[in-house]
Amino acid sequence: MTQGGVEGAMTRAKEGAMTGTMAIAAHLFSVPAYEQEAQAVLPPAIWAYLSGGAMSETTLGANRESWERLQLVPRRLQALTGGHTRLELWGKTYEHPIWLAPVAHQQLFHAEAELASAQGAGATQTPMLVSSFANRRLEDIAAHSSAPLWFQLYWQGSRAASLALIRRAESAGYQAIVLTVDAPHMGIRDRERASGFQLAADCLAVNLEYSPIRPVPEPGRHPLFDGLFALAPVWEDVVWLKSQTSLPVVLKGILHPADAQQAVQLGVDGLIVSNHGGRVMDGCITPMDALPALRAVTPELYPLFLDSGIRRGSEVVKALALGATAVMVGRPYVYGLAVAGALGVAHVVQLLREELEVTMGQCGCASLQAVRQLTVLD
Amino acid sequence: MTQGGVEGAMTRAKEGAMTGTMAIAAHLFSVPAYEQEAQAVLPPAIWAYLSGGAMSETTLGANRESWERLQLVPRRLQALTGGHTRLELWGKTYEHPIWLAPVAHQQLFHAEAELASAQGAGATQTPMLVSSFANRRLEDIAAHSSAPLWFQLYWQGSRAASLALIRRAESAGYQAIVLTVDAPHMGIRDRERASGFQLAADCLAVNLEYSPIRPVPEPGRHPLFDGLFALAPVWEDVVWLKSQTSLPVVLKGILHPADAQQAVQLGVDGLIVSNHGGRVMDGCITPMDALPALRAVTPELYPLFLDSGIRRGSEVVKALALGATAVMVGRPYVYGLAVAGALGVAHVVQLLREELEVTMGQCGCASLQAVRQLTVLD
Amino acid sequence: MTQGGVEGAMTRAKEGAMTGTMAIAAHLFSVPAYEQEAQAVLPPAIWAYLSGGAMSETTLGANRESWERLQLVPRRLQALTGGHTRLELWGKTYEHPIWLAPVAHQQLFHAEAELASAQGAGATQTPMLVSSFANRRLEDIAAHSSAPLWFQLYWQGSRAASLALIRRAESAGYQAIVLTVDAPHMGIRDRERASGFQLAADCLAVNLEYSPIRPVPEPGRHPLFDGLFALAPVWEDVVWLKSQTSLPVVLKGILHPADAQQAVQLGVDGLIVSNHGGRVMDGCITPMDALPALRAVTPELYPLFLDSGIRRGSEVVKALALGATAVMVGRPYVYGLAVAGALGVAHVVQLLREELEVTMGQCGCASLQAVRQLTVLD
Amino acid sequence: MTQGGVEGAMTRAKEGAMTGTMAIAAHLFSVPAYEQEAQAVLPPAIWAYLSGGAMSETTLGANRESWERLQLVPRRLQALTGGHTRLELWGKTYEHPIWLAPVAHQQLFHAEAELASAQGAGATQTPMLVSSFANRRLEDIAAHSSAPLWFQLYWQGSRAASLALIRRAESAGYQAIVLTVDAPHMGIRDRERASGFQLAADCLAVNLEYSPIRPVPEPGRHPLFDGLFALAPVWEDVVWLKSQTSLPVVLKGILHPADAQQAVQLGVDGLIVSNHGGRVMDGCITPMDALPALRAVTPELYPLFLDSGIRRGSEVVKALALGATAVMVGRPYVYGLAVAGALGVAHVVQLLREELEVTMGQCGCASLQAVRQLTVLD
Repeated sequence: MTQGGVEGAMTRAKEGAMTGTMAIAAHLFSVPAYEQEAQAVLPPAIWAYLSGGAMSETTLGANRESWERLQLVPRRLQALTGGHTRLELWGKTYEHPIWLAPVAHQQLFHAEAELASAQGAGATQTPMLVSSFANRRLEDIAAHSSAPLWFQLYWQGSRAASLALIRRAESAGYQAIVLTVDAPHMGIRDRERASGFQLAADCLAVNLEYSPIRPVPEPGRHPLFDGLFALAPVWEDVVWLKSQTSLPVVLKGILHPADAQQAVQLGVDGLIVSNHGGRVMDGCITPMDALPALRAVTPELYPLFLDSGIRRGSEVVKALALGATAVMVGRPYVYGLAVAGALGVAHVVQLLREELEVTMGQCGCASLQAVRQLTVLD
Repeated sequence: MTQGGVEGAMTRAKEGAMTGTMAIAAHLFSVPAYEQEAQAVLPPAIWAYLSGGAMSETTLGANRESWERLQLVPRRLQALTGGHTRLELWGKTYEHPIWLAPVAHQQLFHAEAELASAQGAGATQTPMLVSSFANRRLEDIAAHSSAPLWFQLYWQGSRAASLALIRRAESAGYQAIVLTVDAPHMGIRDRERASGFQLAADCLAVNLEYSPIRPVPEPGRHPLFDGLFALAPVWEDVVWLKSQTSLPVVLKGILHPADAQQAVQLGVDGLIVSNHGGRVMDGCITPMDALPALRAVTPELYPLFLDSGIRRGSEVVKALALGATAVMVGRPYVYGLAVAGALGVAHVVQLLREELEVTMGQCGCASLQAVRQLTVLD
Repeated sequence: MTQGGVEGAMTRAKEGAMTGTMAIAAHLFSVPAYEQEAQAVLPPAIWAYLSGGAMSETTLGANRESWERLQLVPRRLQALTGGHTRLELWGKTYEHPIWLAPVAHQQLFHAEAELASAQGAGATQTPMLVSSFANRRLEDIAAHSSAPLWFQLYWQGSRAASLALIRRAESAGYQAIVLTVDAPHMGIRDRERASGFQLAADCLAVNLEYSPIRPVPEPGRHPLFDGLFALAPVWEDVVWLKSQTSLPVVLKGILHPADAQQAVQLGVDGLIVSNHGGRVMDGCITPMDALPALRAVTPELYPLFLDSGIRRGSEVVKALALGATAVMVGRPYVYGLAVAGALGVAHVVQLLREELEVTMGQCGCASLQAVRQLTVLD
Repeated sequence: MTQGGVEGAMTRAKEGAMTGTMAIAAHLFSVPAYEQEAQAVLPPAIWAYLSGGAMSETTLGANRESWERLQLVPRRLQALTGGHTRLELWGKTYEHPIWLAPVAHQQLFHAEAELASAQGAGATQTPMLVSSFANRRLEDIAAHSSAPLWFQLYWQGSRAASLALIRRAESAGYQAIVLTVDAPHMGIRDRERASGFQLAADCLAVNLEYSPIRPVPEPGRHPLFDGLFALAPVWEDVVWLKSQTSLPVVLKGILHPADAQQAVQLGVDGLIVSNHGGRVMDGCITPMDALPALRAVTPELYPLFLDSGIRRGSEVVKALALGATAVMVGRPYVYGLAVAGALGVAHVVQLLREELEVTMGQCGCASLQAVRQLTVLD
């Protein structure tokens, strides 16, 4: 499917949504509907991998509950004409604040993998964060999409290996480097283990120099602290990273105000407030609960992206009212990818955006700046 | 069925309720019982339309939960003789504080549509708010009812079109104009969409000059902000509206204290604290949670009506104890309408009123003024 | 069954409970177990009458939830030898603080009706409050029991009719008069109505001069406020009542601190903090939530009895730690009555008392005075 | 099975967990998984005894809920190399802070009883607290294990009988005396009673001089307060105990800050904050809720062990962040014992330890000292 094809299909689908005819099944009118459909089309083990969370999944559940319990206090009778959802960031304009979070191994969900997601992103003018664990080459993804792309970097255990990836991302036109800092260990996911999930042999992290095997420490040293954990980045690596690239550098996974302050002091360009969708650590604070304190200790317009648990456009309004610059969604667009490839990705973004716009209008907000002035009750 | 007939039937039903014989099924002794019966008699898609709420229905659920979690602290050993449920408003006396909220397209629920509801209202001396989307002519509804009628106005996109409706309402004897301000978009209702609900071809908004189609903005402009949302009223329209009619003007859907203050300053005569029964916006504050702050910023006896989620007379007591002047119910009387037409509407009002009176007595309150002094704990 | 017989059976049952043999079914080891058994042996409509609550039963549920959510902070390593559960009240000593609340129409549950309950009370040295709606004569009940009896008075609509009952109670040796003040209307109980419950023709309030029919007010007057509610007592009646009897006068149903203060000022001898087991008013504060404020405004040792929702001896500890003088149970002993008559009543009291004593020991308390010093967290 | 055998099996199992082959069933990857398996392999009455709690099990449930509702606020980008889980206590070093709580009658769960548990403890360098109600001789248990052993003392009703046990423990090399102070009565466990659970005749408390029968007080004295409760220790016994042994003395079951302060003043060496796993008293504060206040009134490094409700390594992190020195688990290792004997015990400890280490890394903690600085939200 060409990109123009996706855009054309999206235009038709969008018009369809307004006139009663749609290119895709009429019952797919929300992220929860896509979620149900994705569960039906994916093999059970892949579904367990996609939908599951760490250990007892208390954080997975808390992420959802946190957004659902918030209440917005709408304003009335405001002028809405001329309204829009645009935002400015680092000198660029983005059409809307619902972006695609990095998701690994998208070949699990659709044969076109990240290429399809990037096409869907392009069709909806949606920035996409491409994972280090993509199954397609960074350069190919960039070539298939008109979307702004950011590169998500898992620290490669050394500065040299990390830098090689950064240089490729820069050359391919990626517009920011996002260092994930919340996953020295990828998480203990019970549901996934119970399902017997295994990565298929042809599901390769094609952008990485080496297989991500677990390192074996020297005898007498600790298998985790001196093994896997020793490959994780530290603050000094962030300083080094800033010195190596002129692209904006963003940290993904910051939740503690002191870490946010340190990042600002080191010149980090933005933060993604995230608990990795509840996939990595169980018992972790939710981004919703963390956000107000982070906004309180960072400069007024400092970029704070919110990731984890958003399933509705109304929840995007809540996140922005709490102080987020924009939000990122992960599983939602993968549901779309699994169900309908690039078109599904684009449709999911469009659905969330429509929910966002409708909720903005219902709250009397003609701009994201107005949204940020809304009162929200916990 | 003539109005006298309804009143007679109500009198017989009411006597029946006290002596053991009833004109209608004995198990219909509460709003929840009517709700269950209505679900049984209505086609599934119409039931989904009636009972469903916006998106994930978190606000629909929160509305109910908010009333159920409140606790009244009753007073004892008060003189109850001579007690009543009357209230004075704008020089008129009303028998009780349980009024009928505007509900569109009542032909969906009963062949006699708004005529039946108005008959039931008349039989129980209950003010009824007639929707802009009524399926019967304003004038015919007024002719069929002895109830006080208020006209609910959806802004018609222009002052001229809106004024035409107001003039008709004035001529037909409607006693107040209620401008709905919470629905620049009517809401994204998943349950309703999943049901395949469609308005039948003969279910017409007979009072409106034009079909309420979605306007198409000029190319390059935003389909919602410069389309549908551009038809919504703004504060200047409220000022204009006040200048055009000598009837009291009420705003329906105010939830933010600043909006309440502005309404008071502009001379608006009363407010309906409502989130539209959870049908329009998901993630919205409940009227119960909003009411105390609105009462705090408005004059002592300023009319604040409470709408959304009330299903019991005991909850009417809670609403008044929190500061409401009167409450409005929507779905409850439509359940009655669906089950038994005018008689059902009247019976539902009567049941709620009996629950109100019994709870007042149990709380030591012989008047609504006493109710407003009650302590209520959240 | 003679009283001695019940006492003997109780002694055997109690010894059985400690040695492994019991006179009654071994699985009846708690109030919840008796509750399940009572549901099995009673006709469904009588079960609905017994177990149901007002309207949506939110208060019925809140009563239970309130006790379950409290947490006691136990003390350790205290001397327990010589411990007991005795309390002094108005110059008399009572063996334990778990008393029998007034329950109407006990013939519904057992052929021996109040006589059996009074026997069970006597066998366990448990004060029993006898309802105005007893199906056995006050004098006969007194003759069948060695328990301290209090007379529960529903105001009889006039001072003369009320006084006649009081005089009979005094003559029969009742030791206190308990005026119920929370039921100008007996409550709207949906579950009971749905069950089709009707009092059997031979289930008579044999102590009352007239049938408790609903009075019909004069035309044009309010059917409730000028009818049933006009029969309810007022504060002046309390003053009169105090002047007519030398017995202690207790008010049942006080929940508001201001009412408690007024009662103290009028010389009322004690209060039962109760919401009538959630049977009368839905949406009412729970006694647990009300108790601390009532204790705060009454003299230190002023008798405050706690009624509604207690199902465990551990919850008796919680109630006393919050400030109660003693507790009353209603449905629990009726479960015992329904299952095994007098023996069942005695066994239920014994089970609760054992749970109380065990919990006292676990909290380091050798007396009820020590219990009242315990810390309890909400 | 020899100890070396268990250690070898554990090493193989541990390597297996990392390479994809395991000596035990692959689905046993968490305590909840072991719990489910244990229920499948144990007779229902023994399962009821093991898993059940006091009365209505509200405290049993609250224990779990308390840990699940806490949220950790992780730190990022910290150096993890060289990290470990060691702690120092009374001059000794322990490898990790997940210890084995005392559990009675382990023959119920596995033929090798406490010998197997002690082997599993030894294989994982885990301190084990041996119950007074062990089914194997203290000396034999010590001979079968390389683990540090502490002796849990139920007061034997007299100082002489208690001292005899202490002397045996000292001689056998036990390293601390743990006096349980929360069980003057062992609890009223409904689920256990409903199951018909009885100790088998050959399930003997082989270390005790006499059968733990219920003492019969003199006639006229209270069966509990002057009977069983009279055998419980008091503060003076603690003073005496400290004077009799040079081993550290620990009190198990302290929950009130005033008791903690008294213990510190009397020279008690440490406290186990525990509600006995919800088995003894229903309606008791959870250790999680109690811990912060106890930490606040005790010296900074005073040993406070946390017992009750821990099922995940992430919850160990929470407990230490709240102020615990180490945690103890009871039922979890018994699940392992029931499923796979010594190997199961060792595997359960290993699973919890891996979860602990992974969560530490995810929180940026390379030591338990760092864990104790973490922010945790309730």
